[in-house]
Amino acid sequence: MFMIDCGEGTQLQLRRSSISFTSLQEVFISHPHGDHCFGLLGLISTFGLLGRTRALNIYAPAVMEELFKKEMEFYCNSYDYEVIFHPVDTTKQQMIFEDKSITVETIPLEHRVPCCGYLFREKPSLPHIRREMMDFYKIPVSQVNNIKAGEDFVLPDGTVVENAKLTRPADPPRAYAYCSDTRYMPQLAEIVKEVNLLYHESTYADDKIDGAKKYFHSTARQAATVARDAEVKKLLIGHFSSRYNDDNLLLQQAQEVFPNTMLAEENKEFDVE
Amino acid sequence: MFMIDCGEGTQLQLRRSSISFTSLQEVFISHPHGDHCFGLLGLISTFGLLGRTRALNIYAPAVMEELFKKEMEFYCNSYDYEVIFHPVDTTKQQMIFEDKSITVETIPLEHRVPCCGYLFREKPSLPHIRREMMDFYKIPVSQVNNIKAGEDFVLPDGTVVENAKLTRPADPPRAYAYCSDTRYMPQLAEIVKEVNLLYHESTYADDKIDGAKKYFHSTARQAATVARDAEVKKLLIGHFSSRYNDDNLLLQQAQEVFPNTMLAEENKEFDVE
Repeated sequence: MFMIDCGEGTQLQLRRSSISFTSLQEVFISHPHGDHCFGLLGLISTFGLLGRTRALNIYAPAVMEELFKKEMEFYCNSYDYEVIFHPVDTTKQQMIFEDKSITVETIPLEHRVPCCGYLFREKPSLPHIRREMMDFYKIPVSQVNNIKAGEDFVLPDGTVVENAKLTRPADPPRAYAYCSDTRYMPQLAEIVKEVNLLYHESTYADDKIDGAKKYFHSTARQAATVARDAEVKKLLIGHFSSRYNDDNLLLQQAQEVFPNTMLAEENKEFDVE
Repeated sequence: MFMIDCGEGTQLQLRRSSISFTSLQEVFISHPHGDHCFGLLGLISTFGLLGRTRALNIYAPAVMEELFKKEMEFYCNSYDYEVIFHPVDTTKQQMIFEDKSITVETIPLEHRVPCCGYLFREKPSLPHIRREMMDFYKIPVSQVNNIKAGEDFVLPDGTVVENAKLTRPADPPRAYAYCSDTRYMPQLAEIVKEVNLLYHESTYADDKIDGAKKYFHSTARQAATVARDAEVKKLLIGHFSSRYNDDNLLLQQAQEVFPNTMLAEENKEFDVE
């Protein structure tokens, strides 16, 4: 369970959801603007008041470390769990997290302050066992790991059952890229190449393409251009300026370039597949 | 327009209300716990992004000043309005704000960190003019201020019309006291004597009277005891522990001591009268 960015009120949304607080162990912050990090201290406080003991890891731009530690010392000094700050170099693409099934890399972005996105990749998984074939050949459970690892199975009479008969191919590893906030970066397409789901900010519509450049934000059409050039499977756009009364304008402009685009909506769930 | 305390999400509640952002010029913070101040930076940021130019005054315990200024410098350094921090000595009862119609005094409280309440008092106002008598005696409008100030009026024929005939008594000045968070303090009753409305925290019911003392909070019955001893007109209780599924238990225990007690509820408005 990962959290990416933590604006004001995040703890309230989390409480309204069915997500277990303790399963959240990693929070990734893209940049030090309030709408992306002002909920962090409240979240940490609430976890503390609820008696959390499991450590919480915060990955955030290095520039945030000094103030964050002062805030923790002042506001969150009496809780029973550790909050570990991992300073992130937002100028490089590098792996900053790894466990047995996932890696997380930074994606350098261009915003008014140090800012990066995050790229989540599943590691390749093992093939699936074909249970009916295991039963058919009466293969003991003790052999499952060997067969998943690619071995054939030799029957008592010496017959070799080929591995391909006993397994189905592994699921292809999935990838999710989160890019917020950023000026349009054509070179992003290489970094997020062929991910299953790309979240890309779309603050503006075509009418404000100059403003987008000036304020280091993107238009919906620019987000879709990255998605198209990267040949991603799905694009999710969000972070819309309040100047637009109807987000469907942004959706429409994005879909003209990349049809498989969806609007990020409050509390909506999306599958990475 | 005053704001007292500013927990996470306050800007959202403010946006949902009909209150004009610019008319808010003073924010009073009782103490540095997240549920009383974590909304401050978000509020300040939003005002800035909306182009506010009018200064905003923050009155808060002096112990908060250093970190607040660092946060402002890091997160809110590019806005077009001034945010003025007024450090408050929470150990003394003293006047910290005054304008033509209102004074605000601190109320020293006993909590785990420096904490004070705030006492808002209207200044005595002038009597009301009896318009029908003005018409009857054909008194020119230019005389209104003199009459409000207590002067009689002399008719052209020399007859003196007494001031009491021309005016109705001024409204009695109103007072509102806000006390959160605090251990039960019997001596509070003197400070909030006869206010129109007393807000007093009521974290616990009778079952947790020991916990209240330990964690520097009050029970509903203790809040009501302060209200009764101070002979206030109305008591408003709030800040209920989430251990109580039904706040009416707290209301009932308070009303046993002070019948004119109400529950503070999200978005509910109360008159001070």
